[in-house]
Amino acid sequence: MILYGKPVADTVLENIKESITSSTTKPHLAVVLVWQNDASESYIRMKRRACERVGFSFTLIQKEASITEEELIQTIEELNTNPQIHGIIVQSPIPGHMNYQHIIEHIDPKKDVDGFTPYRIGNLFLGESEGIISCTPKGIKRMLDYYHIDISGKNITILGRSNIVGKPLSLLLANADGTITLCNSKTTDLAQFTKNADIVIVATGKKWILRKDMIRPDAVIIDVGCTIIDGKAHGDLDTTWLEGYCSYSPVPGWVGPMTVAMLLENTLLAYNWLQK
Amino acid sequence: MILYGKPVADTVLENIKESITSSTTKPHLAVVLVWQNDASESYIRMKRRACERVGFSFTLIQKEASITEEELIQTIEELNTNPQIHGIIVQSPIPGHMNYQHIIEHIDPKKDVDGFTPYRIGNLFLGESEGIISCTPKGIKRMLDYYHIDISGKNITILGRSNIVGKPLSLLLANADGTITLCNSKTTDLAQFTKNADIVIVATGKKWILRKDMIRPDAVIIDVGCTIIDGKAHGDLDTTWLEGYCSYSPVPGWVGPMTVAMLLENTLLAYNWLQK
Repeated sequence: MILYGKPVADTVLENIKESITSSTTKPHLAVVLVWQNDASESYIRMKRRACERVGFSFTLIQKEASITEEELIQTIEELNTNPQIHGIIVQSPIPGHMNYQHIIEHIDPKKDVDGFTPYRIGNLFLGESEGIISCTPKGIKRMLDYYHIDISGKNITILGRSNIVGKPLSLLLANADGTITLCNSKTTDLAQFTKNADIVIVATGKKWILRKDMIRPDAVIIDVGCTIIDGKAHGDLDTTWLEGYCSYSPVPGWVGPMTVAMLLENTLLAYNWLQK
Repeated sequence: MILYGKPVADTVLENIKESITSSTTKPHLAVVLVWQNDASESYIRMKRRACERVGFSFTLIQKEASITEEELIQTIEELNTNPQIHGIIVQSPIPGHMNYQHIIEHIDPKKDVDGFTPYRIGNLFLGESEGIISCTPKGIKRMLDYYHIDISGKNITILGRSNIVGKPLSLLLANADGTITLCNSKTTDLAQFTKNADIVIVATGKKWILRKDMIRPDAVIIDVGCTIIDGKAHGDLDTTWLEGYCSYSPVPGWVGPMTVAMLLENTLLAYNWLQK
């Protein structure tokens, strides 16, 4: 089975759209951009279009790459206190003279729709799974739920322990009763952990690091990797000869739409909370 | 090798004592107790004695078990604003009509020396390892460091995914480049994960759940379990015939002293921060 992301993302977006049709005000997402490259431009375009589709307001605040940390924090604090804004994200990457996590910590956790502030991470750790939590892990769990893939009691191996995918996902799936193995670049013999897994989530950014001989038949593979080579996107999973052998998510086309759908869901949650 | 906790805890406490000898004020730990049983009484005695040993002030605030959540939160908020208090903990367990995590969240993260608030958990997730983080995981890592047991690139299996041991420890050791497998009561065939591990940390509270035939020779076992049967303490690890086979921490006598030493270290860190 190929696990397409689009039908899942479409369902989420349609539900969001429907839930706000009768509101007089609309959720409003603000994106702060301080460094533009092809990837960030493409992500922002996806976020803007998704906002337009469901009827959210969208504001892009573009700053010069020479901005100081203090000025950027000032911008965030203005958005924190602006009652018209419900969700704030700082588009990564940011210029090298600034520390991303240090900047992010100034976002009011109530408006932190990326789920990157320590408070939001702590809530995910403590069991939050449908609230405002990190978008890609939330999207992966939603996708597994959509395709009726059990988590409880299953062996789940995650390759890559980033702050935005591997680590939060390990908590989310451990909370859902999965047995989690979290690997990193220092792991010796990845295959011993992937061969044994019912579900493998691969998020290393290394093209084709996961091959057929490392996976057992009937496994479920979620591929979060995307490496662009000569303009072509490659996943972390080599899908050669995989069809009929196991289930997997296609690259490209999965991570982006699901992550954006979860971002909009988080913005709706923040809006609902701030309206109270 | 038997991994004794006392020399590690003693070293930590002596360092703390030395670091404050010339201070005119002293770190002050407040413990809120709303439910007394043998275990909580024993823990509080250990914390009080450790405070006396290093020269910290210690205040026990005892409340009736019939106290409401609102009254308890009020007590915490008074401690939050009291400039004489640097560390606040609410001794668990608390009566069944109250939610522990809900209560804890009212502790000012700056004074949260148990490291249980979402903000503190988030910081641990993001890489904090020597700051104010959850005491038992911090003590386990300190112990591994003390005995020169490598974490990077090692296979580490954790049995039990509680909020105070298994989950925070999985993050702490993943951040230190370990490959982490986090098991829970739904895990099928624990042995497949323990046999493969360089280090096993067992924190299930199930007497002798881990046996020699589930461990490889030369493994390192940290036993955080403690089950009292007929007045005798039993670990999660059955130590029969283990001497010379692998390294392990003894039960009882390890978790308590190390956890208390880390609690005092956290209180010192909070004190230093609040003095700034």
